[in-house]
Amino acid sequence: MRCEVIAIGTELLLGQIVDTNSAWIGEQLALAGIDSYYHTHVGDNLARMMDALRITLGRSDAVIVCGGLGPTHDDITREAIAAVMGAPLVRDESLAQRVRERFVSRGREMPLSNLRQADVPEGASIIPQMPGTAPGLICPVGEKIIYAVPGVPYEMQEMVKGHVIPDLQKRAGSAAVIASRTLRTWGQSESGLAELLAPRITELDRIGNPTLAFLASGIEGIKVRITAKGGDRNTALRILDEEDKRLRAILGNLVFGVDGQTMESVVIEWLRERDLTLAVAETFTGGLLSARLTAEPYADEVLRGSIVLGSDETVSELLSTPAWPMEPEAAAETLALAACRLFRSDTGLAATVVARPPAPSTPAVSTVFLSVAGGNNAETRSMRLPGDRERVRQFATINLLNLLRLRLAAS
Amino acid sequence: MRCEVIAIGTELLLGQIVDTNSAWIGEQLALAGIDSYYHTHVGDNLARMMDALRITLGRSDAVIVCGGLGPTHDDITREAIAAVMGAPLVRDESLAQRVRERFVSRGREMPLSNLRQADVPEGASIIPQMPGTAPGLICPVGEKIIYAVPGVPYEMQEMVKGHVIPDLQKRAGSAAVIASRTLRTWGQSESGLAELLAPRITELDRIGNPTLAFLASGIEGIKVRITAKGGDRNTALRILDEEDKRLRAILGNLVFGVDGQTMESVVIEWLRERDLTLAVAETFTGGLLSARLTAEPYADEVLRGSIVLGSDETVSELLSTPAWPMEPEAAAETLALAACRLFRSDTGLAATVVARPPAPSTPAVSTVFLSVAGGNNAETRSMRLPGDRERVRQFATINLLNLLRLRLAAS
Repeated sequence: MRCEVIAIGTELLLGQIVDTNSAWIGEQLALAGIDSYYHTHVGDNLARMMDALRITLGRSDAVIVCGGLGPTHDDITREAIAAVMGAPLVRDESLAQRVRERFVSRGREMPLSNLRQADVPEGASIIPQMPGTAPGLICPVGEKIIYAVPGVPYEMQEMVKGHVIPDLQKRAGSAAVIASRTLRTWGQSESGLAELLAPRITELDRIGNPTLAFLASGIEGIKVRITAKGGDRNTALRILDEEDKRLRAILGNLVFGVDGQTMESVVIEWLRERDLTLAVAETFTGGLLSARLTAEPYADEVLRGSIVLGSDETVSELLSTPAWPMEPEAAAETLALAACRLFRSDTGLAATVVARPPAPSTPAVSTVFLSVAGGNNAETRSMRLPGDRERVRQFATINLLNLLRLRLAAS
Repeated sequence: MRCEVIAIGTELLLGQIVDTNSAWIGEQLALAGIDSYYHTHVGDNLARMMDALRITLGRSDAVIVCGGLGPTHDDITREAIAAVMGAPLVRDESLAQRVRERFVSRGREMPLSNLRQADVPEGASIIPQMPGTAPGLICPVGEKIIYAVPGVPYEMQEMVKGHVIPDLQKRAGSAAVIASRTLRTWGQSESGLAELLAPRITELDRIGNPTLAFLASGIEGIKVRITAKGGDRNTALRILDEEDKRLRAILGNLVFGVDGQTMESVVIEWLRERDLTLAVAETFTGGLLSARLTAEPYADEVLRGSIVLGSDETVSELLSTPAWPMEPEAAAETLALAACRLFRSDTGLAATVVARPPAPSTPAVSTVFLSVAGGNNAETRSMRLPGDRERVRQFATINLLNLLRLRLAAS
């Protein structure tokens, strides 16, 4: 089974928007074991969209078209697909009613053009998930299939996860129900994980169900996707749960979460569960740690505060550490403890670096010290991180959060 | 002149990397007045790369191929282009020597495979700019042309800006030397800018040189690109400088920088020039402002510190503001002044929001208060910002920096 991705929108070609949808869909396809050999960007132009659709259908079994399903005149994905299917657009009355009701419920007048969103190519059906106003479409073209989904990421993601991927897997030959889960890991390389899981992978190669896939995702860690098949949904979920348990028994604390969880969301959740508060003192990470934490919904319940220290005098004054400046290892510990004191928090975090990380575009390796304080003691680890300054800042941040996670897990 | 972009790499298809290069190149092409109708992602596979190249050359005049020029066995862009050109790969001795010298100068042994980077399709020439180890290639195919550039962004950007775009413009029919500059603006909508510049645009339509292009870039502001032609470089630059001056006379303080400058780099530069220091107190922006500032090279010379306040008690204790909590407008002013006091800085910044910005995916409008303090007084502005929480955080941050910029400009 081969499935391509076409992202629609002149704004993508002009560089006004970076296309993150194709990467997201590409990852889902890879994790589901579906080959994807090309992604295409094309503008809001009927003839060129039709060309792009024909080229993809000529070389692949399916295509996910993303974007161009809105109500305005330049949203012409429906028209392009209908033309390629050789079918007219037909107004779906239940969709039209739904669009009307949405406006009524908001007390707003509906521009007539909005009913365009209820137009469906004859022979196409509608994706059951519809988190926004734009319906997703399932459009057969001979033996091939076009899925049309909105460009709004959360709408697209719900449709692709909820319908498109399972439908593709079914078309790929399996009549079984498929369920999958991604274990998020941090702290081991891809080859390290593969080594740890080698005996189980060999077993699974023999059994054939569930299957595992690995995906290295930089600062998001390495993802291990479990895909299970069953005669019905409960059976598939049972197989999934059992494999989840088995893998966690092997990987232990390397697993920090599942599916959409991030390192910071897990840390915040665990702190909330334990009724603990957090404070941060940042030097070279410069607010990055704090910005990541506060982007999470419940950060304000645990993060008592954070301070970014721009100069040595500020440190010695504000944190009452007269011996400053000090060696980076001692400095990390001192800062983490001082953050606790300053903000009266249960836990304090700080990171320091031996030399300022190099400027962008000069690869190098930096040594960082990561410290987690609680009460009157702190645990400090050193770590060597390759890359430019921004990469070192990013990886120091995520590693520091991971250190806190491991400490919370042990408590 | 039509030019497409092909981004090479299986990691793009798997979603391990988001392709930002195509958007960047797309923007450069748009600003240079070159049409670009398709972007393609293809993996490290010879047959599929050749197919992608043939399809693009069939419908466009030129293609920029990005990536796959490294020394490892999966870097096969050179081979794919040579195959499409019907030409053998020939080792370029001067390039080979350059590769060798680079290893010698670092005292490292060179793996023989690295010499692959000196292989060039017969008939191709080398892009003069070479900031890394991978040479860029100019490969004629009949009347059409393939440019191959590395996937590393800064290497790619230097080659595309320095050679590919001017070369495309020359091929587009102009024998003149072309020079261009982008004015970075903040504070006016695209239509607002167009209105301000309407008389000049009408004049330029008649004169034909230089030309202007607008590009809305979200949090990066709206870009106004000037492209000037001249019989020689000096003439082109003179026309460019004159137009730059003329536009600035109309746009005034809406222009915050040129080309690669960011709002934060400009603010830091101006603070340095004036020998002023900065401090930040953040609530709902949660470290974002601080993280943006400290990502800039000279931030440590001006940013004395920043504090993120997670709870009301922290504010009243640390900032010695017993009346806390207070109304958001007064709060912004109080925080900005307190940041100055706490870190003993010349300038203080703070932003507050009336209600917590809504959760992601629920569009709404938030009112924010942005305050810039200096000495014992502060200037506070309110602003209504649409969008989800993350967008409000981002736009509050950039608008606050802009407020400081305007204040510095007036001082």
